[in-house]
Amino acid sequence: MSTDPFSHPWLSGLFSAPEIKQYWSAEAQIKYILRFEIAWTKALSNNGIITSEAADVAFEKLKTFKANHSFLKDGVTNDGVVIPTLVRELREGIQEPDAIHTGTTSQDVIDTALSLTLNKINAQIIKELEGLCGELMQLSEKFGEKDLVGRTRMQNALTIKASHRFDNWMMPIAELIDEKSDFRFPMQIGGAVGDNQALGEDADKVLENVAASLNLDLPKRSWHTNRNMIVSYANWLARVSGALGKVGQDIALMAQMNEIGIKGAGTSSAMPHKQNPISAELLVTLARYNAGQSGTITQSLVHEQERSGSAWMLEWMILPQMTMVTGCSIQTANHLISNIVSIGNS
Amino acid sequence: MSTDPFSHPWLSGLFSAPEIKQYWSAEAQIKYILRFEIAWTKALSNNGIITSEAADVAFEKLKTFKANHSFLKDGVTNDGVVIPTLVRELREGIQEPDAIHTGTTSQDVIDTALSLTLNKINAQIIKELEGLCGELMQLSEKFGEKDLVGRTRMQNALTIKASHRFDNWMMPIAELIDEKSDFRFPMQIGGAVGDNQALGEDADKVLENVAASLNLDLPKRSWHTNRNMIVSYANWLARVSGALGKVGQDIALMAQMNEIGIKGAGTSSAMPHKQNPISAELLVTLARYNAGQSGTITQSLVHEQERSGSAWMLEWMILPQMTMVTGCSIQTANHLISNIVSIGNS
Amino acid sequence: MSTDPFSHPWLSGLFSAPEIKQYWSAEAQIKYILRFEIAWTKALSNNGIITSEAADVAFEKLKTFKANHSFLKDGVTNDGVVIPTLVRELREGIQEPDAIHTGTTSQDVIDTALSLTLNKINAQIIKELEGLCGELMQLSEKFGEKDLVGRTRMQNALTIKASHRFDNWMMPIAELIDEKSDFRFPMQIGGAVGDNQALGEDADKVLENVAASLNLDLPKRSWHTNRNMIVSYANWLARVSGALGKVGQDIALMAQMNEIGIKGAGTSSAMPHKQNPISAELLVTLARYNAGQSGTITQSLVHEQERSGSAWMLEWMILPQMTMVTGCSIQTANHLISNIVSIGNS
Amino acid sequence: MSTDPFSHPWLSGLFSAPEIKQYWSAEAQIKYILRFEIAWTKALSNNGIITSEAADVAFEKLKTFKANHSFLKDGVTNDGVVIPTLVRELREGIQEPDAIHTGTTSQDVIDTALSLTLNKINAQIIKELEGLCGELMQLSEKFGEKDLVGRTRMQNALTIKASHRFDNWMMPIAELIDEKSDFRFPMQIGGAVGDNQALGEDADKVLENVAASLNLDLPKRSWHTNRNMIVSYANWLARVSGALGKVGQDIALMAQMNEIGIKGAGTSSAMPHKQNPISAELLVTLARYNAGQSGTITQSLVHEQERSGSAWMLEWMILPQMTMVTGCSIQTANHLISNIVSIGNS
Repeated sequence: MSTDPFSHPWLSGLFSAPEIKQYWSAEAQIKYILRFEIAWTKALSNNGIITSEAADVAFEKLKTFKANHSFLKDGVTNDGVVIPTLVRELREGIQEPDAIHTGTTSQDVIDTALSLTLNKINAQIIKELEGLCGELMQLSEKFGEKDLVGRTRMQNALTIKASHRFDNWMMPIAELIDEKSDFRFPMQIGGAVGDNQALGEDADKVLENVAASLNLDLPKRSWHTNRNMIVSYANWLARVSGALGKVGQDIALMAQMNEIGIKGAGTSSAMPHKQNPISAELLVTLARYNAGQSGTITQSLVHEQERSGSAWMLEWMILPQMTMVTGCSIQTANHLISNIVSIGNS
Repeated sequence: MSTDPFSHPWLSGLFSAPEIKQYWSAEAQIKYILRFEIAWTKALSNNGIITSEAADVAFEKLKTFKANHSFLKDGVTNDGVVIPTLVRELREGIQEPDAIHTGTTSQDVIDTALSLTLNKINAQIIKELEGLCGELMQLSEKFGEKDLVGRTRMQNALTIKASHRFDNWMMPIAELIDEKSDFRFPMQIGGAVGDNQALGEDADKVLENVAASLNLDLPKRSWHTNRNMIVSYANWLARVSGALGKVGQDIALMAQMNEIGIKGAGTSSAMPHKQNPISAELLVTLARYNAGQSGTITQSLVHEQERSGSAWMLEWMILPQMTMVTGCSIQTANHLISNIVSIGNS
Repeated sequence: MSTDPFSHPWLSGLFSAPEIKQYWSAEAQIKYILRFEIAWTKALSNNGIITSEAADVAFEKLKTFKANHSFLKDGVTNDGVVIPTLVRELREGIQEPDAIHTGTTSQDVIDTALSLTLNKINAQIIKELEGLCGELMQLSEKFGEKDLVGRTRMQNALTIKASHRFDNWMMPIAELIDEKSDFRFPMQIGGAVGDNQALGEDADKVLENVAASLNLDLPKRSWHTNRNMIVSYANWLARVSGALGKVGQDIALMAQMNEIGIKGAGTSSAMPHKQNPISAELLVTLARYNAGQSGTITQSLVHEQERSGSAWMLEWMILPQMTMVTGCSIQTANHLISNIVSIGNS
Repeated sequence: MSTDPFSHPWLSGLFSAPEIKQYWSAEAQIKYILRFEIAWTKALSNNGIITSEAADVAFEKLKTFKANHSFLKDGVTNDGVVIPTLVRELREGIQEPDAIHTGTTSQDVIDTALSLTLNKINAQIIKELEGLCGELMQLSEKFGEKDLVGRTRMQNALTIKASHRFDNWMMPIAELIDEKSDFRFPMQIGGAVGDNQALGEDADKVLENVAASLNLDLPKRSWHTNRNMIVSYANWLARVSGALGKVGQDIALMAQMNEIGIKGAGTSSAMPHKQNPISAELLVTLARYNAGQSGTITQSLVHEQERSGSAWMLEWMILPQMTMVTGCSIQTANHLISNIVSIGNS
């Protein structure tokens, strides 16, 4: 066992989602954070809140900045969030330090970086789900006409075509793609208490500027305390891994009944004859994990007052892992489906 | 304490959602079940699968049927679902018993009755949420210009207008209304193993007929094993009660800081001076309850083979209670908001 | 579906635990509450805080009291707990109303009533678990020598004796019995803020008196905010239903492989030949339900200040239902095990 | 955000439990695994199942073995568990390869390594909880006589001594220490299907030998499928972090009411005057996280047949993280308590 199976030297052989993981790396996150601060400085300058000279100095600093992780870590220990220390570092040695971050707040930066991250991840997941649908259609072409014993309530019912079961696997995936293929997380800007009061009359223009720079949607209001969108997305992630958990459960049962042949199924240290349907079991595990996480992150909706540290940090602990698990589900399902070499008892 | 607070002689003073509860009563459920069977018999007759004489006899029986709960209970003990016994009773004494239920299956009936139930409940919830938005707008009109101490991470931050906090309460509610105001659960028909094989070439026409009779959408395929829609709706319910949990948490904190006056707040058996913000606390409780349920019902996505009794029964145990809790949240919030008599310290 | 399957006219054919349910009835709860108040008045009198004449008048009232549920319900709506109204009713028309409830608080009464309830329920569950062990031993005597295909990771492994699998079913049950067979919930007395300040120097004697009257253990301190014991018990309940969920899952799989014969298995409305292992499926459902509830009730440990209404009410919503589900699990397992008529393929 | 906050360059400034983390490292885990295999070879030799010469060759290999992580990872991808590949590597080049691992199975090794890990971690947690109790006693000595406004249901109730609240914080911690201070996870040996059939008559002696070598208790039976102990421990972990979540919630509320002074509280990027009670908020977050995980890991009790890959892997994903979160809770609480510099409004 390990603390994070996705980063473990050998457990990552099972728990793997490199295409998702890259977006959560410290390097990627710093990049998104700096992208926000650059857009912010640009908007301040565009709206005459700072001079273009001050902005240029700030851009130079922002574009060449190398984060000192040890400083940042100390900052997080003290402040609970990386931004105060990061901003201090960014402003250091700059004559007009107000050219950076003025009028915005930690949660604006972190949440906007989150939107940038999740938009990438969502696009990746949609793409992989579409790939999986393709794989399932090929499976249906190859084996769809085979007969299977249809089973209900753990009992033999009537004979079905294999394609009927495969179509049942595909249907929720198609719905889930449809639900989020056009979805994009918006910008977050609210300032200290969510009402952008520090920006005064410039608020609208600044916000539009930043949104345009970052190519993000501009929401009607800041969503500092409105985590509906986050929790809804987390549940969608759990529904993706849940739909694939059903596929895994079916395949594990088919393996038990010798109704399926899987190339390269797992070996046993004690029984060399076994062909364990590891990937199928893993799909069930991932589904059950994400189902639970979906409930726990929903607890973070009780987000007190103008910003809650405790509700917010709960998201941090759960959401990235859920994206990894969903990514791993899809890749595992894809691998499993593409290794099916026979269907049915004959 | 009690096993079902919503049905308890006195705890139902807190845990109450009569407008939702009515749709879950045994009487309402039997009505929806019979409505399905009537539509089914009609479709069989329309498509020449049974004679119109046989259909007329069946209609007579279906329309005058009085359920014997004791028989039904014994049937459920044996079969895990009420339909086999109910169908036996419905067919009793009928010369052509095939005029009833032929070609459909228990899950078709129960799930379609569920759709009829949830469509009523959803309409009710949407209506109540709209009422709550109206209440919140009135609150904002009355007290929106009052100053409040904006608080972030449990600390005084900057002064805000009360309207800013109220708008933050309203924003997720508006989103949630938007998300489901046009949503309607569809019909369920799949027959024994979900592929309507018993209906042969008549399947499409029969399905269209039944859907039209019941005024339900016709889905592309049966969703016997695809519970995406159910789990997604359950999470929406949890997000509604979660959004109101945030309102409750804020009001409880305001009550603690003497920043709010609530008419008729609760009394204490030991300390007559206290004005406990019972409704505000209850909103938090309901939010945490439904958050947890949302995770647990997501476990039911791992729905094996052509129909899973265990995953299906898990929905039965969780979903109705979640609708009650959401209904109770909205009514509690409405009551609480409408009893606010002052905002701010002055 | 229904709001409380345990109270439903026909779903209660599946979801049933009458021996547990009786202890949660409004009548039983009122009885425990009055038992507390009688013990309390007696202790006040024993310690000279009230006169024995005042106590006698109070006893007369307490012993003949008939609760008016409608009044109590209104009280709960207002106060969030039944005690303030109940005490008002109890004191009505009594010349020295202080002879009742003086120095204690709502949570003392409700929590002590809970301890009285759970001690009964725990004894019942232990007794039923012991009965189930007996049933399993008989099963082993009858069929233990039969050969079964041992299966690991959903694959045939080595042949085992059926007794090996049955012993694996029994082992956690034996552990669980051992864990709680001597456990007893203690009295709760803390007064308004948990420190019994209203009782002054009499506190120790009053507490000892009440504990002796109620035959409950006297804890070191009030546990108004320390819900460790409650959450731990809830998890034990979930571990009981979880252990039986494993039994159910095994039997459902054995049924699928035709390795078990069960007398009276469920029928299908569409396929008369089927023998659905309803009880086995139900055990899995109940296990998954209680597992989820165990996590949700653990959220109630974050119990703010000297007493939290919201955390407390969350217990109310979850714990009784968990005891019902556990009771139902045991009774279902017992019924299922005792109906096994064959083991193995032959 | 990040995939594992405990391994993140800067988020680990908040999410930190190095004393726990060390036991989960790949190096530590390999060490425990090899310790099992050495004990196993020794027991085979002691009981004459292999020659002492073969054992000596095996010991040499086992004691000097350097794991090739890349091979192991490939093995995990294929087999779902590291042991088959590891055993292949260990046996390579050995003339009598049966001197290693013969008669045991992957789950024996992994679960026994888990017991070795958790026994270390439990000892560490108990030690830290005892340290925290000491810290709380010092707090009570310093500030226990201060007056606080006792609050119930979010309302001012009666004045209490600060020591009363501190004692309420300590009480569950003392109970939790008591519950597990003598607890030790046992050895796991069951062989391929849990009944040690491969060892035949030597089973008892071999098991006793291995248990003695590893200084672990010998359980009555293998617990391959009986995960009661694991789930119970996970709930204990959640109850530890839950008890500290209550402390955090109280301190956060005290901070809001200016009833507490904390040295070095967090700063804000937007509002330099703020002193955010970061550690207090984090305690609430960690409590809510672990509460949820406790429910999800309870799902793994439904462990099918003689060994379930999917239920087992679910433990892997949850349990290590729960120990980290609990460790982090205690260290955070310790840090927070030791930085309290004033109590009460004055």
